[in-house]
Amino acid sequence: MAQNIYDDQAFFDEYARLPRSVHGLDAAPEWPTLRDLIGDVVGPRVVDLGCGYGWFCRWAADAGASSVRGIDLSERMLARATSWPGSPAGVRYERQDLDHLDLPLGSFDLAYSSLTLHYLLDLDRFLATVHDALVPGGRFVFSAEHPLYTAPSVPHFVDGPDGREVWPLDRYLDEGPRTTDWLAPGVVKQHRTVATYVTSLLGAGFGLDRIVEWGPGLEQVEAEPDWAVERDRPPFLLMAVVRA
Amino acid sequence: MAQNIYDDQAFFDEYARLPRSVHGLDAAPEWPTLRDLIGDVVGPRVVDLGCGYGWFCRWAADAGASSVRGIDLSERMLARATSWPGSPAGVRYERQDLDHLDLPLGSFDLAYSSLTLHYLLDLDRFLATVHDALVPGGRFVFSAEHPLYTAPSVPHFVDGPDGREVWPLDRYLDEGPRTTDWLAPGVVKQHRTVATYVTSLLGAGFGLDRIVEWGPGLEQVEAEPDWAVERDRPPFLLMAVVRA
Repeated sequence: MAQNIYDDQAFFDEYARLPRSVHGLDAAPEWPTLRDLIGDVVGPRVVDLGCGYGWFCRWAADAGASSVRGIDLSERMLARATSWPGSPAGVRYERQDLDHLDLPLGSFDLAYSSLTLHYLLDLDRFLATVHDALVPGGRFVFSAEHPLYTAPSVPHFVDGPDGREVWPLDRYLDEGPRTTDWLAPGVVKQHRTVATYVTSLLGAGFGLDRIVEWGPGLEQVEAEPDWAVERDRPPFLLMAVVRA
Repeated sequence: MAQNIYDDQAFFDEYARLPRSVHGLDAAPEWPTLRDLIGDVVGPRVVDLGCGYGWFCRWAADAGASSVRGIDLSERMLARATSWPGSPAGVRYERQDLDHLDLPLGSFDLAYSSLTLHYLLDLDRFLATVHDALVPGGRFVFSAEHPLYTAPSVPHFVDGPDGREVWPLDRYLDEGPRTTDWLAPGVVKQHRTVATYVTSLLGAGFGLDRIVEWGPGLEQVEAEPDWAVERDRPPFLLMAVVRA
């Protein structure tokens, strides 16, 4: 199974302070793009893979889903999700290791996963399970840390040759674990290339609908000038794919 | 029209010394992968967009194509291609600016383009033309300089924070022209993201079959140790797409 860093108390305490933890989807700058990838209709049956605090599950229920299943490995996350006051009806949470995900066949119209896939050890198994759990025409929309973000030996901006800050890229084609200090020391992520994500999705039987290498738009940078470097090296990869 | 740097004498003289200019496809380390993307059958009617010296055109004719059309903007390139001794029958060269490409509708089984697309100003127009020139089921296989290669302000490896060489990535999401000194000063390339290539291809009506972020394999690095850094930042993006 993947590392369960979200059940580490120090990590969890730091995570709880992130704007997206405190304020939910509207504090995630990539959310408007993800929302757009989902499309016009939130299907009646939704599954959120790596649901965390349940922000998306509650949003999906409010947006018209008749049933929403939120799955996460972290007990602390699920405790927070289920303790939310006034949670909409139809939302159910359960604990599963996504590397051994088990879902009923052909049972969902929309699968969603936010910033989770880069923790998984066995992406192909996961994608096959998600594919089979969707109805034909069902949609899988996800974000992951962009491979440019996960690749480097030292994933921090540094001064570049002409004085600009640059992202010190190396090891892009060397896929596998990367251990970084993000919120807590020793967080393990799995680096994969963009081509591997696409190839694995096609291999699982998905058709590609949309792909976005997400960075802040120019208006977002104007509002938050510190985000400018995120256009130098996009932090997130977003995709929408369809079960044929 | 795009810059016609290949008709610059100084550039052309330098280009003529590259291993792939002197020795052809077998001296291009990405060729075995491109060959694999083409698939088992080289269709009877082939067009090579940015054909250069005509190495691929001659290969395609030898591999079974009944007609091969090689198109390039550079008069020097075409002069070299047509002067080749013992060129196979069925190969025809012509000069066109690929930004204003004109091809007969539904007339080709395979379109091919090697390291040319990053010079084009209007990728969408080009892809629409290629799409319409293929028969249904026809295949477009191409390589381009990888967006990681074209993005940076200063596209050269530098010493990184932990002593390793790193690629100083910046401006990845800022698409547009990049002026570099490659073989000659002032070569203009068009930087586009991976997502833009994929999105433009889908928008033109292609289905995605294969995508490869090409860098040398471990055996190639063993034979040519200087190539190791090309795994840190893949130099080429290769794709095979199909007209539905």
